[in-house]
Amino acid sequence: MRKILIIGSGKSTSYLLKYLLDKSVLENLFITIGDLNIENTKKLIENYKNTKAIVLDVFDETSRKEAIKNSDIVISMLPARFHIEVAKDCILYKKHMVTASYVSPEMQALNDDAIANNLILMNEIGVDPGIDHMSAMHVLDRIRDNGGKIILFESFTGGLVAPESDNNLWNYKFTWNPRNVVVAGQGGAAKFLQEGTYKYIPYNRLFRRTEFLDIDGFGRFEVYANRDSLKYQSVYGLENIKTLYRGTMRRVGFSRAWNIFVTLGMTDDSYTIDDSENMSYRDFVNAFLPYSPSDSVELKLRYQIKIDQDDIVWDKLVELDIFSSTKRVELKKATPAQILEKILMDSWTLAKNDKDMIVMYHKFGYEKDGKKYQIDANMVTLGEDQTYTAMAKTVGLPVAIAALAILNGKIKTSGVQIPITKEVYQPILKELETFGITFNEKEVPYLGYNPLNN
Amino acid sequence: MRKILIIGSGKSTSYLLKYLLDKSVLENLFITIGDLNIENTKKLIENYKNTKAIVLDVFDETSRKEAIKNSDIVISMLPARFHIEVAKDCILYKKHMVTASYVSPEMQALNDDAIANNLILMNEIGVDPGIDHMSAMHVLDRIRDNGGKIILFESFTGGLVAPESDNNLWNYKFTWNPRNVVVAGQGGAAKFLQEGTYKYIPYNRLFRRTEFLDIDGFGRFEVYANRDSLKYQSVYGLENIKTLYRGTMRRVGFSRAWNIFVTLGMTDDSYTIDDSENMSYRDFVNAFLPYSPSDSVELKLRYQIKIDQDDIVWDKLVELDIFSSTKRVELKKATPAQILEKILMDSWTLAKNDKDMIVMYHKFGYEKDGKKYQIDANMVTLGEDQTYTAMAKTVGLPVAIAALAILNGKIKTSGVQIPITKEVYQPILKELETFGITFNEKEVPYLGYNPLNN
Repeated sequence: MRKILIIGSGKSTSYLLKYLLDKSVLENLFITIGDLNIENTKKLIENYKNTKAIVLDVFDETSRKEAIKNSDIVISMLPARFHIEVAKDCILYKKHMVTASYVSPEMQALNDDAIANNLILMNEIGVDPGIDHMSAMHVLDRIRDNGGKIILFESFTGGLVAPESDNNLWNYKFTWNPRNVVVAGQGGAAKFLQEGTYKYIPYNRLFRRTEFLDIDGFGRFEVYANRDSLKYQSVYGLENIKTLYRGTMRRVGFSRAWNIFVTLGMTDDSYTIDDSENMSYRDFVNAFLPYSPSDSVELKLRYQIKIDQDDIVWDKLVELDIFSSTKRVELKKATPAQILEKILMDSWTLAKNDKDMIVMYHKFGYEKDGKKYQIDANMVTLGEDQTYTAMAKTVGLPVAIAALAILNGKIKTSGVQIPITKEVYQPILKELETFGITFNEKEVPYLGYNPLNN
Repeated sequence: MRKILIIGSGKSTSYLLKYLLDKSVLENLFITIGDLNIENTKKLIENYKNTKAIVLDVFDETSRKEAIKNSDIVISMLPARFHIEVAKDCILYKKHMVTASYVSPEMQALNDDAIANNLILMNEIGVDPGIDHMSAMHVLDRIRDNGGKIILFESFTGGLVAPESDNNLWNYKFTWNPRNVVVAGQGGAAKFLQEGTYKYIPYNRLFRRTEFLDIDGFGRFEVYANRDSLKYQSVYGLENIKTLYRGTMRRVGFSRAWNIFVTLGMTDDSYTIDDSENMSYRDFVNAFLPYSPSDSVELKLRYQIKIDQDDIVWDKLVELDIFSSTKRVELKKATPAQILEKILMDSWTLAKNDKDMIVMYHKFGYEKDGKKYQIDANMVTLGEDQTYTAMAKTVGLPVAIAALAILNGKIKTSGVQIPITKEVYQPILKELETFGITFNEKEVPYLGYNPLNN
């Protein structure tokens, strides 16, 4: 039996496990899942035979090394910062490794060791990063193989709530780490390329410089720029591209309302509020507004932000109950971002029967024989329930498929890598299609960057 | 003869030197001024006898130590970060020291050594910090000595252009380090106390949350909050105060226009623009606006910021020539803040005959016998010319007066300190009055924090 060790059994392991367990007899696999807490995992594996869940503390070197030594391949689903110790052990015991996380400098530094030992350390093979790389390279390579020259690449992903569960004014619920949503876009100006020139958007304008996207059957979305649009420029071979823009998808109107929190300072994660524990939600809002004994918190906010009473953004704020004088923050010495996250959790936590949705949209502009063309490609994946979510599916399946492909020698090239080579993305994208993860492509007129969208 | 060593001969030394030189015979002083460049200094001292200028590199330990060893007191007018080596030498050779800079943690750490050697290391004795400390403590102590309880303290300072030289739409010119003006307010939310609760203003709102102040004979000013309103709360003995607010004064309308730069991201100092060297001012502005071949940079900016064509802020932007396609940035790999500073220097550099102005405004609210009172105190100092500026006067005179008072044993208490004790501020404020640096006090109705001003 080939032994697969999965370390970490968080939200995104359901499909990962199911894929491997469903093939365990056919492929002669034994799957061990290690985590500190294995209660949920036990339920996921209870009907399968070639598997066990073990209590594993990744910081306990002895048991971690023992588990890795006894496996043929290791999948780390831990938070990104914990991968490196696992990776070092994989080098030590000559095991392949797969993660869905960004390649850290420490991980990259293992490249020579990995190659020397003929090991594959595959990273960024979830959804974003992951499916975005694969689906983008699939089209980029095809255009270039056919003699086209890429002049525009835009790529957008969003983790959203499925239409059937989309029942709040923000058209948004937390389907992944809420903290990342609250602090999204912070840490410096967003930088990207538009028609040959660098453009910069400061954080305070990020949510006002959106553009629109339409997906057949799912309606209109908006995107705001990621900070790192240029991150994969050379990785994708786009050195001479005119427009390079990556962003995050939301339903239309989310960003304009979110910008109110940004403007007031409620997303700041750089300082703590002394008396946060005893604050009401209303006190929290009032901390960002001038003192005025004669005016309500509501009117002060409306005046500062200039919100008309019939503006839908006002209803969005009210829906969150942020003006409540009875709901308490309760968090001790919390940052504004932590407090806002808590307030949003009240409203944006998925209900028991809620389903999530992953949307992805690429635009590829290219020149061929003196003419300009554009291909748009989009993908929508819906969750089935709160265990088998779209997020778990799009993160877990590529990881699982890659792990088995490595075990079966279908992916051969060693080293620390991400899924941008045909050897990797072709078989994985093909198999993802059998799970309904498909991209709809269409030729559209090349408009370049369309100013009317901005 | 008592030997005074002044290290550093920047813009603020003119009055400092003049004060000491004018008293050099009477007080039996010999003044040595050391700097890398002493051309300007030579002119300032050419008519005096008890003085010399020496070329001194503060990083040359041997000559620095030699100069300090041969003096009775050392005045450091160097940039703040260079004081500490001088201070250590002063401890070594048992010399008093005076600076106009904020007490650094390293400076504070010398306190025990200073006391053990009966040395005075006086800091923060310029204008802001300096005259603000002294004039505030003067009134705060008087109110408390008379049985009043302080409930409100607001304090504002501005370095501006004198009314007679105030000839641009911003009512502003650089009278001090331009860089500090460009990055003012960055680095975290401004925090202050208003009627018993902490209030926070993020950077993107700082220049929209101004309040107004009027000074008889000089008209109306506005203030924006400093980041550090609470910095001196315990130092001033204001632990139980309801309102504590410190800010920076500008002429009305400056902040609203400045906020356009903040909103666009032009004050960001955290990243560099690759091709800044070859940009025109217009290219620079355009880097913060969406690409649009059919629209002008002007209209894109107006639309993004929502500026009506008859809004005076538009004229302020035009006055700076920021839309020029012929003026070049020329700076290599510059941050947006550095580029903006350069553009502003074109318009805001003092002309040969321009005069500057220092304004300061304190509000003191207090309770006594169950009633509430308020005292407002303000000070305006005008420069005489580009050498004898208001800035040089208000920074240099307190330093000079303090140095002589220490030499003459009028200030006795040893240690690393700032001028908040009666022993220090009483004689200095009194002597400053003879130079026209006076505070106008008036009783006003106690309004608390006035919401109509915000």
